[in-house]
Amino acid sequence: MDKLSVVKIGGNVIEDAEALQSFLADFTQMQDAKILVHGGGKKATAMAKKMDIPVQMVEGRRITDAKNLDIITMLYGGKINKNIVAQLQNLGCNALGLSGADGNAIQSVKRQVKKIDYGFVGDVVDVNVELFQMLINGGYTPVCCAITHDKKGQLLNTNADTIAATLSRNLSQYFEVSLWYCFEKQGVLNNIDDDSSVIETITPKVYDNLKEGNIIHSGMIPKIDNCFDALAYGVSKVKIGAPKMISGITKHTTLTLKDE
Amino acid sequence: MDKLSVVKIGGNVIEDAEALQSFLADFTQMQDAKILVHGGGKKATAMAKKMDIPVQMVEGRRITDAKNLDIITMLYGGKINKNIVAQLQNLGCNALGLSGADGNAIQSVKRQVKKIDYGFVGDVVDVNVELFQMLINGGYTPVCCAITHDKKGQLLNTNADTIAATLSRNLSQYFEVSLWYCFEKQGVLNNIDDDSSVIETITPKVYDNLKEGNIIHSGMIPKIDNCFDALAYGVSKVKIGAPKMISGITKHTTLTLKDE
Repeated sequence: MDKLSVVKIGGNVIEDAEALQSFLADFTQMQDAKILVHGGGKKATAMAKKMDIPVQMVEGRRITDAKNLDIITMLYGGKINKNIVAQLQNLGCNALGLSGADGNAIQSVKRQVKKIDYGFVGDVVDVNVELFQMLINGGYTPVCCAITHDKKGQLLNTNADTIAATLSRNLSQYFEVSLWYCFEKQGVLNNIDDDSSVIETITPKVYDNLKEGNIIHSGMIPKIDNCFDALAYGVSKVKIGAPKMISGITKHTTLTLKDE
Repeated sequence: MDKLSVVKIGGNVIEDAEALQSFLADFTQMQDAKILVHGGGKKATAMAKKMDIPVQMVEGRRITDAKNLDIITMLYGGKINKNIVAQLQNLGCNALGLSGADGNAIQSVKRQVKKIDYGFVGDVVDVNVELFQMLINGGYTPVCCAITHDKKGQLLNTNADTIAATLSRNLSQYFEVSLWYCFEKQGVLNNIDDDSSVIETITPKVYDNLKEGNIIHSGMIPKIDNCFDALAYGVSKVKIGAPKMISGITKHTTLTLKDE
């Protein structure tokens, strides 16, 4: 089985031109087949402000109305995605940008309204694995923005972490997939105030101990639960750490099902 | 040789939601392999105005500075391209949006500064025909926006007519290509004030006669010259007319090299 790396970057990389350039150089050097998944960070909020479009928040979560969806489509699908692709092309990586609508890459359904109407937000239901296989086998590197569609003509704002996890799960039928979550910290930390206290390996047993010892803070638990979900569905490894981890020279946390 | 239709739409379709919906339904019905090429019409100018970004014009031509390039990338590459793709997906056409940077689809060079510096404007130098073949053979319909790249990390604004013509020329090695230019009129007219006076076929001999008789107005001549260029480079037919022509039920002008 060929190896495939699915790498997700967030706001801390997207919002810093130098960090992005450095990340893309490292990403280009990754030898396996690879997919990049990116969000847009705070750029959408800044642009909404500039265009006098109100951003509604409910319980700390952004509501995506039609005008904010337009902004997300312009930024994530347009400016950010196309500039990342152009930079990767310059570095020698044959990148090809995709929203979930392109080639029906990632299909979702508009999130059902229960207590809160999140607006044009999509929960992923299907991945066109044949498209990704064709592109990867053709030597292309898909660069996916955090937008999906419902196949009824509607684009939908979708969490980039979820897109990365779903792609990894679906492609693990055909590839040995490593899922890389790049974020602000060096990894899952033993001591949140000490960036060098990276826990290098988390197995289910280690995870139970960490939770029992109250070492992992509450914000990290749903993230790690999602990682173990991905592993349960066939993803080979999940890695959490700073963007530099993809170069292989910095410590980071690896999640795996194998208690050794 | 398989048939391929390359269809270019402009502002009159892009700017009118109903016209666009109707066009996309007709486009989906076209039976041959196909590629859609779109510009963005006046939407970029309107958005620049909204964002207080000045649009500089020299001799009636738009200068693309960095901020206007960002707007074009957001609109053409993002909002317009992704919404067209999502609508086509709904109609059952497996569309996949591309800028010239994606998969190195269309490479260009920044236009040399002679008298005027047009800014970030690209003149096409190469087409990745293998990419288009792979997508078309895989059942996908490429939807190209009017943006290219220089493979050095720079996106470039590029004329959509030129993109359509260059794609047609390059792909005519592998397909029997028809190039369709959709515009405001029903075709090339014998009498500019009579929309029914469509000249149905223009061969080189007919064209000479039309020019001698001053029947074709000056603005049309460079357009037709470009069409004959495309034919000289192997494109099978060029069609000029209203968007509805692609449904096959309206008159339009066909340009061909064959004097019969």
